[in-house]
Amino acid sequence: MRIVLIGAGNLATQLGTALAESEHKVVQVYSRTEESARALGTKLGVPYTTSLHDITGGSDVYIFSLKDSALEEVAKQVCLHDDNKVYLHTAGSMPMELFRPYASRYGVLYPMQTFSKQRMVDFKTIPLFVESNCIEAGMLIQRLADSLSHKVMVLSSEQRKYLHLAAVWACNFTNHCYTIAADILESHGIPFNVMLPLIDETTGKVHELKPIEAQTGPAIRYDKSIIDRQIELLDKDIIKQELYKQLSRSIHESSKQTGKSKEQL
Amino acid sequence: MRIVLIGAGNLATQLGTALAESEHKVVQVYSRTEESARALGTKLGVPYTTSLHDITGGSDVYIFSLKDSALEEVAKQVCLHDDNKVYLHTAGSMPMELFRPYASRYGVLYPMQTFSKQRMVDFKTIPLFVESNCIEAGMLIQRLADSLSHKVMVLSSEQRKYLHLAAVWACNFTNHCYTIAADILESHGIPFNVMLPLIDETTGKVHELKPIEAQTGPAIRYDKSIIDRQIELLDKDIIKQELYKQLSRSIHESSKQTGKSKEQL
Repeated sequence: MRIVLIGAGNLATQLGTALAESEHKVVQVYSRTEESARALGTKLGVPYTTSLHDITGGSDVYIFSLKDSALEEVAKQVCLHDDNKVYLHTAGSMPMELFRPYASRYGVLYPMQTFSKQRMVDFKTIPLFVESNCIEAGMLIQRLADSLSHKVMVLSSEQRKYLHLAAVWACNFTNHCYTIAADILESHGIPFNVMLPLIDETTGKVHELKPIEAQTGPAIRYDKSIIDRQIELLDKDIIKQELYKQLSRSIHESSKQTGKSKEQL
Repeated sequence: MRIVLIGAGNLATQLGTALAESEHKVVQVYSRTEESARALGTKLGVPYTTSLHDITGGSDVYIFSLKDSALEEVAKQVCLHDDNKVYLHTAGSMPMELFRPYASRYGVLYPMQTFSKQRMVDFKTIPLFVESNCIEAGMLIQRLADSLSHKVMVLSSEQRKYLHLAAVWACNFTNHCYTIAADILESHGIPFNVMLPLIDETTGKVHELKPIEAQTGPAIRYDKSIIDRQIELLDKDIIKQELYKQLSRSIHESSKQTGKSKEQL
């Protein structure tokens, strides 16, 4: 397949790299900003443009990896009612049907992963969630997805919204907890890497146990004296104190489901 | 060394198992409850008791793995001012000096890990944070710790308090985010294991990047339309809605430190 990438951010960069290593061919890259367009175009060795009008008509697939707020406006300007072209976006929280007014064949290819510029990921291991508006688009998207990853699943827009919400908890909010831990350690002269075995085991446990069964620490034991002392230790930061209280309360609420109260950190 | 374990919870169980595989000898197990005392005594093949008065005087080291609120009272009943005995506790947030009124030689051996009954861990990989009140106790604790783990560090009670606070963020609060993700997925018919590659990569990233550099998602981009829609999706749960808002706010605050705003989940 001939593919145009619309967008050149972290996701588009890693997707483009994976496509370049597949049997498919990226033929053009678009980005609103010259710098991003050039960076990805150069990396993939393909032409790039910063003008929507210059996007080639001679491609089979157009993949939109843009911020959600730009997606519909760009789709409106790029898409055609042409049975020989399939339009895809890669967004967790956006419905497939945003393409409906502008295209005949379309769908979604959502790679659920956290992408940063500084770290490449192995695309083969990333779960890809796909959706399509017709059999023809469905077959093409499935073929494309299968060539990129071992883990391809069909999922509706409605379910994908909740999947993305869950991903925000499991990835973004989790990482923020790491950030707070790193800040605390740094303020007291302790290197962050002492925390890595604990972080790895916390992750390792949920490969085997349900997260609720893996829960440990003062909040699940409802050890009020530690909880109160730890809130005091955060005394210069009201946002973090409030977060600590609410996370502890939420853990305590969830413990009522299981009757669990004795695990130790 | 001859060792008595006072307490038979998850930590004592895993510590006892590691000690049984070392060159040291667990000679007795105490727990307040018959069931726990018997379980650990049987597992280690050593005598057990539920009476503090029956704890043997003929041991070199006494390790207290009890809940924080019980620690001082039990230390008071068990410890002796005897230069041939060293008393240790394993608690993250409790000061070493709680032993001072009752003992001559004492210290702390804090294994920073999350212990659950259902999953054994390799003690050799667990960071052990040690502290002691005198050179003699210090040498003994160091020798004991070195025989259990490759990662032994000396840390004061004051620093250990903050280390434990950081561990609560990096482990307990993180795991609760997994629980919330699992609840959301389960309510929408999606298996939790689809989330594991994302969870693994989130963890993998902080081996290479600072957590704040690894942050992705709607909150760091401050994509208000996704944030608002996701809060709506949590509409039946006020605690989780509030947590979502505060975590997003806290991520946004931390982003001001780095000027970072474009990473994609």
